[in-house]
Amino acid sequence: MRTISITDPDDPQIAGFRDIRERDLTGREGLFIAEGEVVVRVLASAASLCRPRALLLAEKRVEALGDVVEALANETPVYVAGQAVLDRIAGFPLHRGILALGEKPVAPSLSKVLETVADDDVFVIASGIGNHDNMGGLFRNAAAFGARAVLLDQSCCDPFYRKSIRVSVGAVLRTPSSVEMSAEALVAAMQARGVEVVALTPSATERLADYRRQGPVALMVGSEGPGLPRAVIERCRAVGVPMAGGFDSLNVAVASALALHHVTNATLAP
Amino acid sequence: MRTISITDPDDPQIAGFRDIRERDLTGREGLFIAEGEVVVRVLASAASLCRPRALLLAEKRVEALGDVVEALANETPVYVAGQAVLDRIAGFPLHRGILALGEKPVAPSLSKVLETVADDDVFVIASGIGNHDNMGGLFRNAAAFGARAVLLDQSCCDPFYRKSIRVSVGAVLRTPSSVEMSAEALVAAMQARGVEVVALTPSATERLADYRRQGPVALMVGSEGPGLPRAVIERCRAVGVPMAGGFDSLNVAVASALALHHVTNATLAP
Repeated sequence: MRTISITDPDDPQIAGFRDIRERDLTGREGLFIAEGEVVVRVLASAASLCRPRALLLAEKRVEALGDVVEALANETPVYVAGQAVLDRIAGFPLHRGILALGEKPVAPSLSKVLETVADDDVFVIASGIGNHDNMGGLFRNAAAFGARAVLLDQSCCDPFYRKSIRVSVGAVLRTPSSVEMSAEALVAAMQARGVEVVALTPSATERLADYRRQGPVALMVGSEGPGLPRAVIERCRAVGVPMAGGFDSLNVAVASALALHHVTNATLAP
Repeated sequence: MRTISITDPDDPQIAGFRDIRERDLTGREGLFIAEGEVVVRVLASAASLCRPRALLLAEKRVEALGDVVEALANETPVYVAGQAVLDRIAGFPLHRGILALGEKPVAPSLSKVLETVADDDVFVIASGIGNHDNMGGLFRNAAAFGARAVLLDQSCCDPFYRKSIRVSVGAVLRTPSSVEMSAEALVAAMQARGVEVVALTPSATERLADYRRQGPVALMVGSEGPGLPRAVIERCRAVGVPMAGGFDSLNVAVASALALHHVTNATLAP
């Protein structure tokens, strides 16, 4: 197993792993940090859409990831450091001891995503999601229910932020996604390809449980506070989940899961 | 509006609000901290099961909570401090500027909860949930779908932990809950009262979408890692949510929401 030992936290070879939290805020110019065994295994898997550029492991974790190191080592440098050096590189105590630096995929354009649309395709559209936990949850759920792609409008946060990737248990790295223009333009593009856009909103009168899809469908969610803009809802089929007294809404990732489960399990309308 | 001005972070009147994070870890002997406007409004509402003992507000937040202060001030001291004093009391920058100290409710015994059981009652049972975000999510979902109560086995974390309460958007404070013995004993007690216990597990062959309840039902979830113990699953009706390729499970709070939505919206079996 070919690994490269790092003993100096200032070693230029591992510069990409330095000061992780600070660079979470400033961005990484097309790169991202994946952390923990589950996520790094997704990055190294055949399902990944992203190229791993380097691994950085604590000495004590090399054995657990032996198969990944073996598979990657010909093309990807695998750096190994003691815990103290690793903590100094990262800038905080890195108990998990497993990091990877990866390249964001070239996101397909919306027209590329919509080139072929099948009757049973399901898409997720997100507008204005600014919370990285919710973004990660959306991707996790989209992957769990086999959504074709997640489409984000320009007001969404970056799904390749470290915490989003972690919360998604790696789904961000294997789910096609595309960031496009405005929510309205996204809706119009989907509808032009025969995809029904379902806006999930507490203001809807149609219950999710009563909704039956007719063909390809896009499930659209908005930010937790203001929700989807009225102008967007009016262009879509509005569907909601009735709440018990005193509650006005669900977490947005939870709402996406309810809709994904419903449209992938309910029978098609006759 | 009668409020009490605090200018000394060591004032003994606000001792219960000091060093919030440290005491999150050691516990508060029957008390809890609620933070933020949404949660404090639940605590002060008629739906709350908990008695507020004191409020501590930043000067700039008093006006926004004027109605709450007005309603509580006869029985509950409302302390007001400048931002700098507040930060020193809490031990960290408290941007939200809204805190309350509350008393945990006396949890009803399981036999009390089960004294009357209606045909359309839904319960949530949690076993081994150790993550405070997931615990908060479970309570939020239970309240959103009108579950009668959340029953926890002894291996669960405390739902009155500050972050659980926040993630639950206050549901922890208004949803009856009870901590009892082992998961097996909880299942047996529910079944003895005619409640069907549905164990949510990826190992199930019956799909959640195909399940139809016959009467009162308890939805049981286990910890994300190991899930529910086999011995528990075998005593219950095992139900699962099929995943797309490569994914083996959903977040536990998300799974609870799928089941709650399904059993509260699907028609009863004939």
